[in-house]
Amino acid sequence: MAEDNKPFSMTRIVNWGDCDPAGMIYTPRAIDYAIEAVEEWYREVVGISWMHINFTMGTSLPTVRVECDFIRPPYPRSEIDMRVRVESLGKSSLTLLIDGLNDDGEPYFKVRLVTCYISRGEFKAVDIPGEVRAPIAAYQAACGD
Amino acid sequence: MAEDNKPFSMTRIVNWGDCDPAGMIYTPRAIDYAIEAVEEWYREVVGISWMHINFTMGTSLPTVRVECDFIRPPYPRSEIDMRVRVESLGKSSLTLLIDGLNDDGEPYFKVRLVTCYISRGEFKAVDIPGEVRAPIAAYQAACGD
Amino acid sequence: MAEDNKPFSMTRIVNWGDCDPAGMIYTPRAIDYAIEAVEEWYREVVGISWMHINFTMGTSLPTVRVECDFIRPPYPRSEIDMRVRVESLGKSSLTLLIDGLNDDGEPYFKVRLVTCYISRGEFKAVDIPGEVRAPIAAYQAACGD
Amino acid sequence: MAEDNKPFSMTRIVNWGDCDPAGMIYTPRAIDYAIEAVEEWYREVVGISWMHINFTMGTSLPTVRVECDFIRPPYPRSEIDMRVRVESLGKSSLTLLIDGLNDDGEPYFKVRLVTCYISRGEFKAVDIPGEVRAPIAAYQAACGD
Repeated sequence: MAEDNKPFSMTRIVNWGDCDPAGMIYTPRAIDYAIEAVEEWYREVVGISWMHINFTMGTSLPTVRVECDFIRPPYPRSEIDMRVRVESLGKSSLTLLIDGLNDDGEPYFKVRLVTCYISRGEFKAVDIPGEVRAPIAAYQAACGD
Repeated sequence: MAEDNKPFSMTRIVNWGDCDPAGMIYTPRAIDYAIEAVEEWYREVVGISWMHINFTMGTSLPTVRVECDFIRPPYPRSEIDMRVRVESLGKSSLTLLIDGLNDDGEPYFKVRLVTCYISRGEFKAVDIPGEVRAPIAAYQAACGD
Repeated sequence: MAEDNKPFSMTRIVNWGDCDPAGMIYTPRAIDYAIEAVEEWYREVVGISWMHINFTMGTSLPTVRVECDFIRPPYPRSEIDMRVRVESLGKSSLTLLIDGLNDDGEPYFKVRLVTCYISRGEFKAVDIPGEVRAPIAAYQAACGD
Repeated sequence: MAEDNKPFSMTRIVNWGDCDPAGMIYTPRAIDYAIEAVEEWYREVVGISWMHINFTMGTSLPTVRVECDFIRPPYPRSEIDMRVRVESLGKSSLTLLIDGLNDDGEPYFKVRLVTCYISRGEFKAVDIPGEVRAPIAAYQAACGD
């Protein structure tokens, strides 16, 4: 739940092995961190794990688009505050904004992630199930978004 | 070099471990594959390795933006034809389009990668060095882009 | 199939992003490369994909032990000849040796991978299915192991 | 510092993307988790970052051997208690034991990691620097190892 209109966030420390020989984060690892934060957000805020969504509810939520802007380079051991907000909650699709921030609240990178709910069997778009939609809508409202 | 106006491509087979429990490619791995293709393109087409650019030439080429659209899901052992084209070659920045295609030339996913040349010491934008620019411009022309 | 007693091998070029700020391969990536080679060996030599083993045959083959010795450091763009041999083919378990070699046939690293066939439902050891065992035994014999 | 003879540990939640289509952790990710724990142990217990060791002290600590036994399969969202102990502290080499435990203190997997201190320039073994050795020896003693 968003507490006091404060979006969900988690700390991610940049691993040595997520940086490349230039000494900064290797590009795809920022996307790894963003999705890690979204997965945790699902567990903490939505209250439903991806295992449950995929194997009990019979839906899946593939990514249809991801974008990432890099503003400041994170280095090994940089502590990144990963914040998750809802940009839009559609009929089948969900767009999340995941910002990776430094101690001063300035961005290392900003990710936009668009996922679409589908039926696992037919691979076709389905309405976002109510038990997923309700807590997301509540979170979005609590954040003032 | 682009042969007969045909863009550079390399085959990437989707690893089992690059897919998640839903059975499809895990989102960030598509970006891994795209950058792998760009790294190989640098070696084959530009003729200069990233080690040379970073540690001999004293420049670095961090990603400033990456986008990826997912159109069809790749599964374990899918063979992806990774094609690299130049969208724009600026003063300091280079924008590449990396398409991951199936056997019929239809896209699994499409990546746009924007990198910027900087000096390693001052972390400021610099002109793309001539020995990098020339083969990229030649490739872009050979592709008809 | 092993041709002329020559073990299966595939080339793996070390990606920039698989190396860490020290400039050499990041330890776990050697295991990634070894398993990538084993997966390809299954497809080429055993003739059966891991998807088939897991979802059609109803068995799974978790790793029970992995070891890796590092002898020479691979750098970005090092070309590694990944060779797969059978050390032992038991009732339920299979031990493979995966060597990562340079151009002179000298090892970068050497991996031993022990997997065990289990039933997916009960998670208990089962006999290695005949259609898997036969081509592995033939390969082992062809290699003179 | 080891508190009350209790070894250093950190919690690692298994990411969805670290599991493969069989639904369990992909083998090399256990090694990733172990090294992540060791990196954090260096920062917290040894008090020196790998950046400092590599770029200020001029030494490097490549892995010479890694072993991992898998006892219980971790699934997505499993919480793993990663514990780091010292097995042996030699002249140039350091052997660590990293156990990944469940809530009942039972192992998911157990890793042995052997690293060797070298000079970055000559790539030859050197004595472990005193500022690294002292806190490691103190930790080893505090753990009763």
